[in-house]
Order: sequence, then structure tokens, then C-alpha cells
Amino acid sequence: MTPLPYLQKANSSFIDRDVTKMGDLIKEWSGEKIRGVGLIGAPLSKSSISHSGACFAPGTIRKALSGYSTYSIEDTIDLAKWIIQDLGDVSMHVTNIEESQNRVYETILQLFKEHPSWLPIVLGGDNSITYPSIKGYQEAKGEVGVIQFDAHHDVRNLEDGGPSNGTPFRSLLESKTINGANLVQVGIRDFSNSKPYHDYVNNHGVTVYTMKDVRHTSMKELMETSLKKLEKSVDSIYVSVDMDVIDQAQAPGCPAIGPGGMDTVDLFEAISYLGEHPMVGGLEIVEVDPTVDFRDMTSRVAAHVILNFLKGKQRGGLTFD
Amino acid sequence: MTPLPYLQKANSSFIDRDVTKMGDLIKEWSGEKIRGVGLIGAPLSKSSISHSGACFAPGTIRKALSGYSTYSIEDTIDLAKWIIQDLGDVSMHVTNIEESQNRVYETILQLFKEHPSWLPIVLGGDNSITYPSIKGYQEAKGEVGVIQFDAHHDVRNLEDGGPSNGTPFRSLLESKTINGANLVQVGIRDFSNSKPYHDYVNNHGVTVYTMKDVRHTSMKELMETSLKKLEKSVDSIYVSVDMDVIDQAQAPGCPAIGPGGMDTVDLFEAISYLGEHPMVGGLEIVEVDPTVDFRDMTSRVAAHVILNFLKGKQRGGLTFD
Amino acid sequence: MTPLPYLQKANSSFIDRDVTKMGDLIKEWSGEKIRGVGLIGAPLSKSSISHSGACFAPGTIRKALSGYSTYSIEDTIDLAKWIIQDLGDVSMHVTNIEESQNRVYETILQLFKEHPSWLPIVLGGDNSITYPSIKGYQEAKGEVGVIQFDAHHDVRNLEDGGPSNGTPFRSLLESKTINGANLVQVGIRDFSNSKPYHDYVNNHGVTVYTMKDVRHTSMKELMETSLKKLEKSVDSIYVSVDMDVIDQAQAPGCPAIGPGGMDTVDLFEAISYLGEHPMVGGLEIVEVDPTVDFRDMTSRVAAHVILNFLKGKQRGGLTFD
Amino acid sequence: MTPLPYLQKANSSFIDRDVTKMGDLIKEWSGEKIRGVGLIGAPLSKSSISHSGACFAPGTIRKALSGYSTYSIEDTIDLAKWIIQDLGDVSMHVTNIEESQNRVYETILQLFKEHPSWLPIVLGGDNSITYPSIKGYQEAKGEVGVIQFDAHHDVRNLEDGGPSNGTPFRSLLESKTINGANLVQVGIRDFSNSKPYHDYVNNHGVTVYTMKDVRHTSMKELMETSLKKLEKSVDSIYVSVDMDVIDQAQAPGCPAIGPGGMDTVDLFEAISYLGEHPMVGGLEIVEVDPTVDFRDMTSRVAAHVILNFLKGKQRGGLTFD
Amino acid sequence: MTPLPYLQKANSSFIDRDVTKMGDLIKEWSGEKIRGVGLIGAPLSKSSISHSGACFAPGTIRKALSGYSTYSIEDTIDLAKWIIQDLGDVSMHVTNIEESQNRVYETILQLFKEHPSWLPIVLGGDNSITYPSIKGYQEAKGEVGVIQFDAHHDVRNLEDGGPSNGTPFRSLLESKTINGANLVQVGIRDFSNSKPYHDYVNNHGVTVYTMKDVRHTSMKELMETSLKKLEKSVDSIYVSVDMDVIDQAQAPGCPAIGPGGMDTVDLFEAISYLGEHPMVGGLEIVEVDPTVDFRDMTSRVAAHVILNFLKGKQRGGLTFD
Amino acid sequence: MTPLPYLQKANSSFIDRDVTKMGDLIKEWSGEKIRGVGLIGAPLSKSSISHSGACFAPGTIRKALSGYSTYSIEDTIDLAKWIIQDLGDVSMHVTNIEESQNRVYETILQLFKEHPSWLPIVLGGDNSITYPSIKGYQEAKGEVGVIQFDAHHDVRNLEDGGPSNGTPFRSLLESKTINGANLVQVGIRDFSNSKPYHDYVNNHGVTVYTMKDVRHTSMKELMETSLKKLEKSVDSIYVSVDMDVIDQAQAPGCPAIGPGGMDTVDLFEAISYLGEHPMVGGLEIVEVDPTVDFRDMTSRVAAHVILNFLKGKQRGGLTFD
Repeated sequence: MTPLPYLQKANSSFIDRDVTKMGDLIKEWSGEKIRGVGLIGAPLSKSSISHSGACFAPGTIRKALSGYSTYSIEDTIDLAKWIIQDLGDVSMHVTNIEESQNRVYETILQLFKEHPSWLPIVLGGDNSITYPSIKGYQEAKGEVGVIQFDAHHDVRNLEDGGPSNGTPFRSLLESKTINGANLVQVGIRDFSNSKPYHDYVNNHGVTVYTMKDVRHTSMKELMETSLKKLEKSVDSIYVSVDMDVIDQAQAPGCPAIGPGGMDTVDLFEAISYLGEHPMVGGLEIVEVDPTVDFRDMTSRVAAHVILNFLKGKQRGGLTFD
Repeated sequence: MTPLPYLQKANSSFIDRDVTKMGDLIKEWSGEKIRGVGLIGAPLSKSSISHSGACFAPGTIRKALSGYSTYSIEDTIDLAKWIIQDLGDVSMHVTNIEESQNRVYETILQLFKEHPSWLPIVLGGDNSITYPSIKGYQEAKGEVGVIQFDAHHDVRNLEDGGPSNGTPFRSLLESKTINGANLVQVGIRDFSNSKPYHDYVNNHGVTVYTMKDVRHTSMKELMETSLKKLEKSVDSIYVSVDMDVIDQAQAPGCPAIGPGGMDTVDLFEAISYLGEHPMVGGLEIVEVDPTVDFRDMTSRVAAHVILNFLKGKQRGGLTFD
Repeated sequence: MTPLPYLQKANSSFIDRDVTKMGDLIKEWSGEKIRGVGLIGAPLSKSSISHSGACFAPGTIRKALSGYSTYSIEDTIDLAKWIIQDLGDVSMHVTNIEESQNRVYETILQLFKEHPSWLPIVLGGDNSITYPSIKGYQEAKGEVGVIQFDAHHDVRNLEDGGPSNGTPFRSLLESKTINGANLVQVGIRDFSNSKPYHDYVNNHGVTVYTMKDVRHTSMKELMETSLKKLEKSVDSIYVSVDMDVIDQAQAPGCPAIGPGGMDTVDLFEAISYLGEHPMVGGLEIVEVDPTVDFRDMTSRVAAHVILNFLKGKQRGGLTFD
Repeated sequence: MTPLPYLQKANSSFIDRDVTKMGDLIKEWSGEKIRGVGLIGAPLSKSSISHSGACFAPGTIRKALSGYSTYSIEDTIDLAKWIIQDLGDVSMHVTNIEESQNRVYETILQLFKEHPSWLPIVLGGDNSITYPSIKGYQEAKGEVGVIQFDAHHDVRNLEDGGPSNGTPFRSLLESKTINGANLVQVGIRDFSNSKPYHDYVNNHGVTVYTMKDVRHTSMKELMETSLKKLEKSVDSIYVSVDMDVIDQAQAPGCPAIGPGGMDTVDLFEAISYLGEHPMVGGLEIVEVDPTVDFRDMTSRVAAHVILNFLKGKQRGGLTFD
Repeated sequence: MTPLPYLQKANSSFIDRDVTKMGDLIKEWSGEKIRGVGLIGAPLSKSSISHSGACFAPGTIRKALSGYSTYSIEDTIDLAKWIIQDLGDVSMHVTNIEESQNRVYETILQLFKEHPSWLPIVLGGDNSITYPSIKGYQEAKGEVGVIQFDAHHDVRNLEDGGPSNGTPFRSLLESKTINGANLVQVGIRDFSNSKPYHDYVNNHGVTVYTMKDVRHTSMKELMETSLKKLEKSVDSIYVSVDMDVIDQAQAPGCPAIGPGGMDTVDLFEAISYLGEHPMVGGLEIVEVDPTVDFRDMTSRVAAHVILNFLKGKQRGGLTFD
Repeated sequence: MTPLPYLQKANSSFIDRDVTKMGDLIKEWSGEKIRGVGLIGAPLSKSSISHSGACFAPGTIRKALSGYSTYSIEDTIDLAKWIIQDLGDVSMHVTNIEESQNRVYETILQLFKEHPSWLPIVLGGDNSITYPSIKGYQEAKGEVGVIQFDAHHDVRNLEDGGPSNGTPFRSLLESKTINGANLVQVGIRDFSNSKPYHDYVNNHGVTVYTMKDVRHTSMKELMETSLKKLEKSVDSIYVSVDMDVIDQAQAPGCPAIGPGGMDTVDLFEAISYLGEHPMVGGLEIVEVDPTVDFRDMTSRVAAHVILNFLKGKQRGGLTFD
């Protein structure tokens, strides 16, 4: 056959031979053994209290992530040798929300059974997927500690609307999937939570760092303290990022935006620090709604959360048998 | 008390003493006997196959409607003497979609039990609310004929996603709530429906007018034929308008937009003609998604559907005991 | 009557029994004695030099405010017991701008006559409403000190366009409604004011803190100094917030946006600090234009200005006879 | 000096030697005798009942117009030899709306005194400029007939808001600037006008063609009838185009949009037909709000109104002494 | 391995077992013999005179096309049995535009050499790709007739800017790739072309149907006449659709939009009629700019152009050896 | 002639007699001797790897700049006496990108030959114009040092796409136009550059300050060190600002946005500090794409870069013979 030098796959983008992009590392999974980081999408947002298009975030975060370089010039670390599996998305039921949530749980648990050294990066979806995600994670990993970056406690009662994006940590605590003493909430914001829910987390022994704490203490110190506490009491640590922890100017595409939030650079620093710790075995990012974002800014922030997590893991000397 | 001549209710708009607006006729319902037209919202769109903000349409349609004059200069008919009750919205469950649909059914049925001469105008929401709406309507009214303006048959199977916005007429036919012979579909569009579903409606004796029929036959003739047929076989006629029957240039805010659709003026003519008929006892408008619309254009079209329906009723000499 | 458990007022939102929102505290005023905070809208922006939709801000700020919780987790203060009256809007004349401004003055003065312990929160509108607002306030309260957060002096001459959004402090100074020595301008920005107007405020003894001052001195110190000075020379202090004092990235919906502005957190800190002071008896927010904003971000900032003001008042032990 | 072949005026656009654009014909006026068409802007929209950015339309219409070719392929008419003066804009007062309206009147009248053969094309602005424009025109020209394309009568009472964009024809009729028998309203729309105002125009002998008339009679016939009537009773004819006469899908950038309006092609046909008539001596276009338009579509329609008017004038053999 | 029933490929969409979508027919090409329709993208728009993002149209048109059903209810024709190859995109050089154009020519010619029965559907890109596309097509097919739907002649001189989106038919005529007598231009619009270029096409014997012709003659008649003429003088017919032939209200996403254009239904009727003819062997769609479109409306129109072309081919009994 | 007091040039804006705006200083150049600052536009962005509308930035930056006051209240410096020439734009070839780049080079060099004391402010366009700009500058000025604010090294190989916006510093280094030791890159961002390109600049002796450096060292210190080094080794210093050095929240209109970038205030401080230095003889701003910006925020930042540069020059006592 005559060569067709100028015919390429539809929608290809420019290739520079001297640049390795994250998109070059990420491979569609075809069932082989998972030994390291594996992305999985949980595109559910019908469970949200307010209208949300967070179901589109797995797509936009993947796209944003793919375009960045593998090289951290700040740490002179290159991820170019990694292979990252993209496991795909959990399929969601059109009209049965609890069934959709259960699919997240079952899929994560099942994957861990076959691939115990899998390090999941879960792309929500809204915060309701946190309960099934962590439930699956906990059943595979044992006692779990959670470091949650969030403007909100997310411990709403389940009577007034069922298992929504406002309830995941209520479900986790009530079901004893996690112990309140093993939960650290970072970035809780003024006038964005009710007193009864603050009382609830206090009563469960949850550690709460408000934005005032974040402004007045260094992120490194907050993370150091948190890890020191958790490493004694849990088997594994899971990091949950509700993107609305970030200030509305920097993460304009979250459903519940507002001023007075965290700076992205502080979050990135926290995440790379956490990633470095060998007990940190999972990361999730939720509440990014691309349909109300500006130029996928919030998905770009999410991509940098993942990049900083991977940088931390590389610094921490991640190896998988 | 000293008078405060310039203090008015928040968000009031300009009042011209010589203009009666629809907003002046529409009164929030407080439980009294309903004798004529009553608006009711069914703000459900979590049941949609694709992401939809149609849950916001009851609000935007009400707002658009309120701003128009009560006076039809074309027919020299003034609705200024009408009183229209706004019954409010059916409350939707946050995470249980079938429960939400059932609430639509129960609320409509209950209202008819207490207020048999109610003439409902149901504001969706997505097309999934058509099944519970018409089910409630049918239980109150007896044998029902339906004239459906829609680009799609909406007879999808229920196995692949449950009772969604693609299935309402399947549910109505399978449950024998309506008889296929009493269903008229107008505006069905090219390359927007599958052959199996066309076969399905043919097998159920449904009357189908495609956009080709609409382009080549006058709307008046199509409606005349339809009414003549239905008035012999049913007790009451319900008009269902999926706004995506209109061309995308004229109704840009529907989830499933495309070219080749109906002209608004043809729809208005059909609706006022239908409204005139004494057996036509209900109207619904679905699939308007204000979150993707341009300047609420599609809600404005919806408002004119209602206005033309009322004009028809006035022409038809509507009276309620 | 048969109960209709699922029928609710149109456009209702989700209710969580364990959450008190600001919207639960705010009541439409019906003429009773006003003893504490009362919101009043001044929806005027035809007076703006450049095209402005600030007339819509009373609506969007109210909406943003209503959605936030009453609970400050940072100060563990709950406003849940407050009652806040919403007095409504001053009605504006369609074509007579000075008449509209006068209505603001007359309404505020009249309200104070009947309700001397009213603590007004005035929602503009553009900055032109500052002159009639403070004039009414001053006639009720005596010698007034003003702390003005603004990128601009707003002392333009009145010959070149009449009483616009560029002139309010000129009018206040020229009419001796306030004394220059009792005016503090905070956040004045580089390349956003002319030398003659800087000279003008200097000549009137106005205290000016530029953004350079804000960057190099703590907000607490600036406020402390300002209050110490004013508490000796005035009877009452009024806080005026032109939202364009904030950086364009954080308040994108002001007519005159630009870089190099104040951080929202600094403004919130200043406002709660000021609110705490017993002599601070009024707050206004102007120059929020929702028609050019992104996701009502700027109205959300305005809502937090109000929340921080109320928090300050609670900390300060606000009581009304 | 060394040549700088590649340096051109800032913001220049591509030049094709074989294309004459309207922008090539239009010259900034420098006070010389005006003998033919002269553009003049009246950028006033603070007089609008609802928020309007129509003050920006003179700019966007000029820009749209400049980009079109001078050649009508449909009539094989080339305007390439015309010279069109751009007289500039009437300056508007920042805070005195009636003063602004008066400036329109005075400027137009003054220009006619010096330049009696001027053929004005007035670019609004909102419809309130119609009263001063036509008043100036009438004082210069004698008895005036007006053909008004509009969805609305625009005869609101002046008590409820002063001389706004809803009142111009009321003012013209009340002041006897024009006689009701010499006014033709074309495109009046259903549910967009009140009965009292319909009665008012009927009582003044105004000729009203609703959209129903437009749909059922050819535009040529309507125009022929109108001209035949007016040419007997007036000295000069003025054409007023409120762009909201066009359907919202085709003119999305008008403040008061809605479905059921006129097709642009019908308007163009009417305008070129009217332009051909020697008694037609003025054209105005109002109610284009570029701030809510999509891609300046509505300004492009306005540009084509002007182009068709000029084509008509060329067909009619326009000459000026 | 344990089954993972809920894990699916990332970004999958809902599957209804009873619906066949175009996306199910279109297969990524892997080098096998091409026997029927093959899509190919030419994502070039740096060649445009005005800023254009038409390079993104191959992606958005493919996406729009994939979502439509294979079934034409108007003709009761189902394309479900077709296989359509997606050959991918011609890769474009970052900084050498003429090289990019040449790659289009070479790729098309090369493909025809190997696959002489290929029926190309070329997705631009801007109109500059028409010259290399048709040049490649002509070298493979012999004497070519072209039916061009376009608001513009596109015969600009090449001196003033090189081979741009304004010049393709000049290049085709000058290079004698096609004969003026074999070119039919349909939809040429008023005030959108210069007299010299109208003269140019007249001098070359091009058949020109303006929008006036389109409004006054049925599309079927225009197409019939055109085909009758061409079938005598050429070996093969190529259909070129510049989407700006459509009215701006219906195709808002073209770079050069304006009022007074063609209705989509007329275009679809023309295209299916042309598709039916056995000599019609190629189709291209150019000048769709998704970056300025509203909800991919214009790409949806493009998808329907392709669907109607395929329907025509099915009606015409397309077979390939 | 009768005076026409209210007729002004089209699109004029409000004039306040007490305000001098930058637009009052900037004069369209008419060929006279250039002695100080001269603006020149290089509206090229077809050379960009990804789609870019940076060609529109010269227009939007000029517009933003014109609206700001000449007065720096922070430094009590008034630029009101300056005259700034606007030389216009380099004309760009429609289809030959390298020709366009060459025109930038030739025009700048030619201007320097005639006007050696010209202090150019070059408004891109994309970063590809940096190579011809600095090449022209260097040929006029001798050994050049460059301080580049940029998220990226911009030293891509030229084989994979020619002289694009990713290659300018590669071209400058390879052609020995500048020496690596005389290049300082400030603001280089994590995961936005490849290791081979980091190695490349290291191998060429380029000084690199990453965002980590910027966060941990004061901008003043970085600039002081840079200037001290350069003033020994070069004849003249050129400042190049790729606006994507700024965080995406503050400069949302750059093609390659992302989180973790520089704060505008840091950039302004650096620029005014650099402007003060007598050897700094040129400034360019590139990679502002107004077509994807929000309210021209990024052009407003660019305008402040220029203002701070001028302020620095005034502080530095700029005089031209």
C-alpha cells in the first residue's frame, strides 16, 4: 500500500518529540494486572441536592490531565516512566440513583479483590460517591483514615433526601465504615455549615480545621499533625478532595461556590506531602461541574491535584510488587 | 404611620395602569375550590437520559408568562377577567426518582378528586412526568386521547434505564392507560427515532404525523382530522407538548435540539385550535432546559403555547360550574 | 380537604431540618416596628457613567445571602435567633434620575423617623445612591463618619454629568453632610484616580489608604486607627462598600474592574471588625452588576460582607431597645 | 524617510482590491454640506422601562454595516459611487434623560436647517428617541407620515414613567406632531399590547397591521396600500424600525424578544420598496441591544435594513441638488 | 477473572438496544479496502481571512453525526446496515499553510489511487481546502462538475493574501481544474459579494442562483436543471457546502454570518436529491466554526447534510463493487 | 454655520475635565521623529500550536490602557505630560506565516534605524513574534539581555512545526541573537515544561526562576540579582511578558492557562522595578487571547504591565534627546 504520511487519527493533537505528556502515560485498561495508579470515573451527579453536571468531570479532568507535561521542574522529578491504567467509568443507571452508588462500591471492592496493590484515583461525580468508594476501599484495606478537603462537613441527615452529596460522611460514620477519630476535615468554611452538623462531627471526635486554621497555620504543619495521628490508628489513609474547598475565584466550576476558600497552591502542597506518605493509598476528587466552569479551570486544578499526588508518590519512592 | 410612597416589595417591576399582564391574573393557590385553569409544576429532570436542567422550567415559564399582556390583538380577545390558580410545584425527592414520579401521579389524582373541574396546565420537567401526569388525569377523566407534539416517539424500552424521559408513551401504552388508537404524534423528525420504535407505534395503531406531513399539510387540517377521530373514541383529550418538536433555531433550549423542526407559529395555531375544543381538558409542556437556553427564548415559546391555549379556551367559551 | 403532602410553593428549595439558612431569618416587612437590621434595596444604576446593571444587585445579593447558613464556624457564633426585616426596594422613576435619588433620601429619612433604632443595610444600585443614603442617615443620626472601601475617590465634579456614580463623596463633602476629616477611604487603586481628585480629598482632610497601604499594613491596624479617630469626632459611623475595591479576579462583576485590588478575606476581616463597634450603624454595598458577573460571584462576596457585618454585630453584643 | 511597507493603522482589516465595502463609502463628517444620506447616532437607552444596552447599537450597527459589500447581486445595483456622511453621535447627558432626548431633537432640527436635503438614518438607542427625532424631522419637513415596524403600539401613558421607550407614539400623537391617520403600524404582535392601547390607536385613526395580517397578506401589498394612502395626505414619510418586530430567533438582541414575529426577508423587502418612494425621507432603527445579542446578529439585521433602504433609494433614482 | 459488569469505557453514553445510531456504523479505518462512504477531516482554518476556529469542525460534526439515529422516518429508510469508514484527519503543519493545503490534495489523490470506489465526505476546515480537495478528486475522476452552496462566489484574487478561504473557486477556475460552465453556485447573497467577482464568474460561464432565485424557484427545480446540465458535460459531480449559505438564525456558527440566507430544510432537500444521482461522488462541508457556535447547532446542521446525502444515496441504490 | 453643541464623534466616551486618561496621551503616529515610548502591534497568532485569537490583543490592550488614569496614587507620579506614539500594527499576510514574522523583524529594525531613541512596547500576538522582535531590537541595540516572564521555556525544537509560539527562545539562542547567559526566565511552572527543554536551557546557561522560587524569594530580590548580572554583560535589556506566567484565576484569557501561577501584583512590582533601570529599552506582551477572556481581564492586566513600566521609567528619570 502507498504510504499516507499525512493521515492521522481523528482529533489528534500536535506532537513534539521532546515532550512527554501525561496522556502518553495513561493507557486504557484491558484487564491485565493493576500494579500502581489506576484512574476510575464515577460519573454520578443526579444524587446532588442542587442541579449538578459533575457527571461530566471524569471526562474533563482526564482531558486536562493528559495535556500536562510529566515533568515537575520544581522537584526535578519526571514521571515519564510511569504507566497509569485508565480503568474507565462505572456505568450509571438512568433512573435508580442508589443502584448507581452501589455499582461504585461493588466495582471498587471487586477491583481490589483481583488487584490488591491498586492505588485508586477516583474521579467523581458528586460527593455522594464518597460513601460507596470509601466503603469499598475500607473492605479491602482494613481500618481507614480519611483526610477530607472540603468547605462542608457533609454529614447531613439522610431522612430529608436520602444518600445525597451532602451525606457521605454521615453514612461513613453511622455505618462505622470509618471512625470519627480517623477523619480529618480541612478547609471547613464560615457560614457554609450548620451548628448541629458542627456539633455532630465534634461529638464523633472528628478533627476539624476551618479556613481560619488554614490561614493561620502552615499547611505542612496541619498535614504533619494529621498524618502523625492517623498513622498510629489506621491501616490505610484515603484522601478526599471536594474541590469546593478552593476559593470561588480559583475553582469557579463547583456547584457550591463562595469566597473565603483555600488557595490552590496550599492544596497542591498538602496533596504532594500526603502523597509522599506510604500509607496514603487512595485519592478522590469530587464536585467539579464542567457545565458551569470557565474554560475548564476547575478541571485543570483537579489535574494538578493528581499531578501533585503522583509527585508525592514518586518522592515517597512508590513501588508495587 | 407616616406614608412611605416609594417603598415597594423587593424585585417589583414597572406598573402601567393601562396594561394587564398575565402575572396580574395568576394567583398563588391557597386551597380554595379550583374551577378553571390551574398551573402546576413538576420540576423533575434527574430522570433524563442525557443531563438536563428541565427542572428549572416551571420557574422560567412562569416568569415569561407573567410578563405578557392578557390581550390577543389578533383575535381581539382579552383574558383580563380570568383568574388562574398557581397550585405550586410537586416536591421532588433528592435521590429517589420513581418516588418523585409517583408524587406527580398522586398529586394530580388527588387534586382532581377534590377539584373535578380543574383544567391542569402541567409544567415539566422532562418528558418522564408525562406518564404519571396522564395516569392521574386518566383515572380522573376516563378514556383519554392524547395529542403529542414531539420530535420523538418516546416509546423506548424500560429495561435499559427505567422510566426515563424516553419512555413515557411506552409506559402509557403498556399499562393501557391510553389506547394506541387514541394517541396522535405530531412533528416526529427524521433521523431522530429508530425503526423498531416506529414499528412499535405502528403496531399499536398510533397516528403519526412526521415533519414531512407537517410541511405538506396545513396544521389546521391535521388537527381537524385528529380531533374528529378522538372525539368519537375518548372522554377527554390531553395535549402534550415536548418543546423539542420546534426547530432548534426557535427553541434552542431543549436538551435534544436539531434542525428540521416545526415552526412556532404552526404550533401556536394548532394549540389555539385544540384549546377551542371542549373535550380538551389538559395541557403539559416538557423538555425546556433553561440552563442551556438563550435569553429564555424557549420558555417564552412555552408561555405563548399557554397563551394560545387560553385564547382557544376563550374562543371555545370555556365555563366552569 | 384531602392532604396534598407533595405540593409546595413554586420554586421552593430543599429543606434540611438541621440547617438554618439566612433565608429563614429574613422576613418581608409588613410595617411593624423595626428594631434591628433591616435590608433595603436602592435599585438605581441609570445614574452610572458607564452602562451598568447594578439595579439588579438587590435581587441577586438577597438570593445569595438567603442560601448561606446562619452559623459561623470560625467564631462559633450562630445568628439563628435573629430576625432581619426586608423592607423592600425604593421604587425608581423610569426617566427622572434625580427624582429616583431623592426617593432614596426621603425613604431612608422617613424610616429613621419612625424607627430610630433601625440598622440599615442598603443594597445598591450604583454608587450614586451613597449621597442620598448618607444624607438621610446623617439627618437622623447627627455627625457621621464614613469608612469607604473603594478603588476610587468618587469626588468627580458635578458639572460634567450631574450626580452620577462618580460624584457621591463630592456631594457629601460640598453639602457638608460629612466632614472630610470624618471620611476614611480604603483601597484606593493605582492609575484609577486623577491627581486633581487626589488633591481634592487631601485638601478636605480625607484619610486615604491606597492598595499599597493595604498590602503593607494589616487590615486590623488600619481599621483600629480609623475607628479610634472617628469615635472621637462623630455620633455614628456608616460603612460604604463599593465592591470594585476587590480585585477583578475575586469580584468580576463590578462595572469598573481591574487588577491590583483587595483580597476578599481582608475585606471580610475589616467588616466584621467594624461591625463589632457599637457606633457603626449602617452598611451599604454598591457597584455590583449581576449582568456582567460570573455565576453571581460578586453577589456572593456581597452576601459575605453582610454576614461578616452581622457576625461583628453579634460579637459586639448588639441589642436594640 | 525609509519606507515602512508593513506598518498600517491599528486594527486595520484585510483589503481586497476587487471589493468595495460600505466602510469605504462612509466618511466621518467634517462640517461640509450634506447632500444625501447621513448617519447619526442617538445612543440613549437609560429611558428604557427595562434595562437596556441599546446605547451601544450605533457602534455595532456601524461596524456591521461597514463590512458588507456595496453590491446587490439580486438587483445588480452597486452603491460603490455613493458617499455617505457619518455625522457622529448626539452626546448624551449622564443623569438627565429628558435633556438627552431634547438634544436629539435640537441636533436633528439644527442639521436640517443647514442641510435641508439631508436624508437621515438615525441609529438608536431605544424607542424613546423616536419622539424627538420625528419632532425635529417634522419641523423641517412639514406634515409627516410614519410607517412604523414594531411589535408594540408604543402609546403608553406618560404618567407612569415619563417619556420612555414605551411612549414615543403617544407623545407624537398628543403633541399633534403627527396625525393618527398618517401613522401605519406594521407587525403588532399578539399578547404584547394591552386592549386600552389598541383602543387608543384605533381612536386616533392609526392603521394597524398585526402579525396575522403580515402572515396573510404580502408585504408588497401592505406597503403599496400604506404608501398610496400617505402620499395623498403628507409632505414626507419617515420609516421607523423597532427591531423587535422581527422574530426572536432572527433578532435575538432586542430587549423585548418573543416568538411569532416577522421574518427578516419580509422586512427587507418592505424597506427596499419604501426606500424607492421619493417621499420617504428618513429612516430610524431602534431597540437593538448589543449587550444581550448573539454575535451581533441583530446589528447585522439592522445593517441589512440600511442596505435595503439604500438599494431602494438607488432604484428610485435618488438625487440631491 | 471476576466479572466487572459495571465498568465501561470512559465517556461511554447510554445504550438502548432498540436504537441504532450513526456512531454504531462509523468505524475507525485501519487500512482495508474502502468501498463506500469514507469520512475524512481537513482541520485547517489558519488560511481564513478572518479569525476562524473551523479547524475544530471535523470533531464536532463527527460527534453530532454519531448521536443521530440511522432511520429516516420520512422516507422509511434505515441506514443501519451501512458501514462507514472514518479515515481520520489530514495532519496540518503548524506554521506552513500552503504545505497543509498540499497535504489535503496529496492525501485525497493517494486515497483514490488505492481506493477508486471511495465516496469521500470531506469535513473542513475552511473553504480554502476546497481547492486541494477538488483538485485531488478531479485527478482521480476526470471532468468534474461542482454544485456549490455558498453565500459567496469565493473567487477572490490571490495577490492580496494568497490561497485563502476566499479564493478556492478562483484557483479551480484559473488552474482549469474545473470549467466555469461546470460550476453551479447556489444561494449567493445580496451585499455579500462584489461586482467585479460577479462579473468574473459571469465571464467564466458559471451558473449563479442567488437567494432571490432560491426564494422564488423550488429547490427541486434548481437542482433538476443543474444536474441535467452537468450530467452531459462531466464525468463526476462534487457537492460543496459552505455552511454560511444558511441563514444566520439557523447556522449561527459560521465565520461570515448574516440574515437573508437559505433555510436548512431547503438545503436538506437539495442534498438528498443530489445524493440520489449516481454521478454525485463527493461531498464536502466547510466554514463551520464551533468556537463561535451556539450548542453546536451548526455542526448539527452539518450532520443532517450528511444524513440527507446518505439517504439520497440509499434512495439512488448506491452499490460499490 | 450654526453650532451643533451636542454632536460628537461616533463612539466618544464621557469626558471629565479633571481626569487625564492614558487615551489622552496616546497619539496616532504620523511619521514624525519618535523620541520616547512607541506602541506597535504585532497581531499574529496563526503561528500558535493551539488555536489562538491573540491577534486581537493589540486592540483590546490599547482599549484597556486608554481608559486608565495617568496618575499613580501609590507613587504620586502623574504621566499626564507624556506623549506616547501609537505606531500602528505590522500588517500580517493572510496565508504566509513566516512572511508575517519577517515583517515584524523588518519593521522594528527599520524603525530603529530612523528612530534610534525609540522605546518600543510591542503588543503581540503570540510568542512567536518574540524572535523577530528581539532580532530587530538586537541588530539595533547590540548585545541584548532578556528578562522573560513566562510559565514555559519556549525552546521547542523547530522540526516539529516550524517557528511557532513554542520556539522563540530556541530561535534566539540557536541564531546567537542572544546568549543563554543573558537570558533570565521567571515564573517557569511545574508540569508545564519537559525535562529535555529544562536540560536545554540549563546547557545554555540560562537563569531559571521557577514559581517555587517566586513563592519563596521576594520579587525585588530576584529582579535585583538579574539586573546586576545583566548590566555587566549586555548593552541593552528587553523585557518579555508572556501573560500565561500569571495564575489562571487572574489572567483567564491566555491560551495555555493553569493554576499555580504568579500573582499580578508581583508582576507589576517586577515590571516597575525593571522599568526604572536605564538599560531596559523595550517591553513586549504576548499570549493574551481576547476571544477566550472574561471581560477583557487579561488585557486589563496587560495594560497595568504597561502602566507600571511607564511608572518605572518616570521614576528612573527617562529622558530622550
